[in-house]
Amino acid sequence: MSKTLPSVESDVTQMIERLRSGDVRALARAVSLVENDAPSATEVLSTCFPFSGRALRIGVTGAPGVGKSTIVDKLARHYRGAGVTVGVIAVDPTSPFTGGAILGDRIRMQENLGDPGFYVRSMATRGSLGGLARTTADVASVIEASGKDVILIETVGVGQDEIDIVRLSDVTIVVLVPGMGDDVQSLKAGIMEIADLFVVNKADREGADRVEKEVRAMQSLATSHGDWIPPVVKTIASTGEGIDRLTDAIAQMKQWLEADGRLEVRRRKYWRERITEMMRNALMRELREHGLSDVELDALAERVASKQEDPYRLVPELVARVVRA
Amino acid sequence: MSKTLPSVESDVTQMIERLRSGDVRALARAVSLVENDAPSATEVLSTCFPFSGRALRIGVTGAPGVGKSTIVDKLARHYRGAGVTVGVIAVDPTSPFTGGAILGDRIRMQENLGDPGFYVRSMATRGSLGGLARTTADVASVIEASGKDVILIETVGVGQDEIDIVRLSDVTIVVLVPGMGDDVQSLKAGIMEIADLFVVNKADREGADRVEKEVRAMQSLATSHGDWIPPVVKTIASTGEGIDRLTDAIAQMKQWLEADGRLEVRRRKYWRERITEMMRNALMRELREHGLSDVELDALAERVASKQEDPYRLVPELVARVVRA
Repeated sequence: MSKTLPSVESDVTQMIERLRSGDVRALARAVSLVENDAPSATEVLSTCFPFSGRALRIGVTGAPGVGKSTIVDKLARHYRGAGVTVGVIAVDPTSPFTGGAILGDRIRMQENLGDPGFYVRSMATRGSLGGLARTTADVASVIEASGKDVILIETVGVGQDEIDIVRLSDVTIVVLVPGMGDDVQSLKAGIMEIADLFVVNKADREGADRVEKEVRAMQSLATSHGDWIPPVVKTIASTGEGIDRLTDAIAQMKQWLEADGRLEVRRRKYWRERITEMMRNALMRELREHGLSDVELDALAERVASKQEDPYRLVPELVARVVRA
Repeated sequence: MSKTLPSVESDVTQMIERLRSGDVRALARAVSLVENDAPSATEVLSTCFPFSGRALRIGVTGAPGVGKSTIVDKLARHYRGAGVTVGVIAVDPTSPFTGGAILGDRIRMQENLGDPGFYVRSMATRGSLGGLARTTADVASVIEASGKDVILIETVGVGQDEIDIVRLSDVTIVVLVPGMGDDVQSLKAGIMEIADLFVVNKADREGADRVEKEVRAMQSLATSHGDWIPPVVKTIASTGEGIDRLTDAIAQMKQWLEADGRLEVRRRKYWRERITEMMRNALMRELREHGLSDVELDALAERVASKQEDPYRLVPELVARVVRA
């Protein structure tokens, strides 16, 4: 592998240079390499790294059907109108039930725009735990390296996956709608805590004021967010109403983050988690490559399932195989 | 540490003996040790291991407010009435908004029952990724070692956390209700795929037939579950209506699982994942103990956040510290 590295490196260097000079194909190729965890993915990320971290990352989450895609589209158009370059990462599930639709819309959206200051990428949820959040983070870094000013990260649903994904963001927007059946109270625990901004979308529907009141009531119960009290912004994304108030709120949040080094603190915390996770993955790869093959793992699982082997004694022995004495 | 091991071992052995002879306090203590990841937790799990794996694990998941707790309570009462011993693990969030209530109810439930064939344990979600699924699995093993025939595992919500938790089960029940606002279509991807049984609870409400039809329609689109077609059972858990049909469906599923070694296949798959995860955690512990302190990690995160250090080059170096050459 070390023999082929120089050539990969120069390929990658060229690709990233093209990506940085605005070549959309080079960007798409780099993103694909990272998304598919190709052999050169680490080289791509390492080469992009010095040029990443300059964009404002905005995460948008909320239950299915609240209008996240529409909000993201309107935000993207607003920023483009103001000359701000935008990347969008739409994280979609690959469920056979809902898989293709959003991806299709996004592809159309990109085709219609044909704008070099705008890049959109749909990503599919894979089975692997935590893997999607990692890949989203890496893809965001690559898109940032292409010089985008704002990265919008949109998730489907409000589960732990989504919480992990939006935690990558500098600003996290939680979208609610009136009359969800679902009370605000029944929102997945953890979602309230990560919100920097609440949007009550479809605010022309009955009950918008009630949703806002409920959010306020919860905030009064919640542990403090420091001196930032997440604002509640009402929108009707389909008509664009309230999008200007939302971009104002985002700008205020950005200002607050940039004051007193708060953004640095967030990003330091973010990198702490990322480094830990990268190490965890790298260690597992070592174990799989040098210690424990798939076939052996299958055989062990069978012996454990049939009570012939105690996993609590087995695992320390396996770990000892790869770890220095 | 090796010096104190004999005494811990004999303590643990005694505790597990008492636990196995029906001592509820010993059971509660053992569960606490495992839940809190105490130094003796591995010894507890190792000692319980030969006596675990005999219960039928039933996972119950669904959106907040669909009546999961009521269903679990009715199932528990039904089984107790039939002389079947029952353990319940209720996995609750520690959110400041919804934290304490369910736990409180559960404690009352246990006090009221005062039945040695019944044990209930509430568990709180922690921040750590995947950690709760692991702890739930371990706690289930300990409760199984006390000789319970059925373990009911109930989650709050339907996110990735919950999917990970109910994947530990032999039988997974997904609870729906009519008029959720939420369509069945908008259910978190992944939930449909893990369901072995659907319950349409509050079936006296308008729209119960529609929910059933929607589930059926989705099933016709879904990838096959083998030759098991997840049945849809209508219940009104608050009055107990339909609980007998539900226990019948569970019994049928159990029969199906036990035929042709399907249960063994599921459990082998389960242990494959568990062993992998246990190794991942053990490797991280090694790294933290021998390679990288918290203080050092903080310093690295700061250098990475300020672009002084490339994490993609750093991590392989860190991993090399603990891994054999």
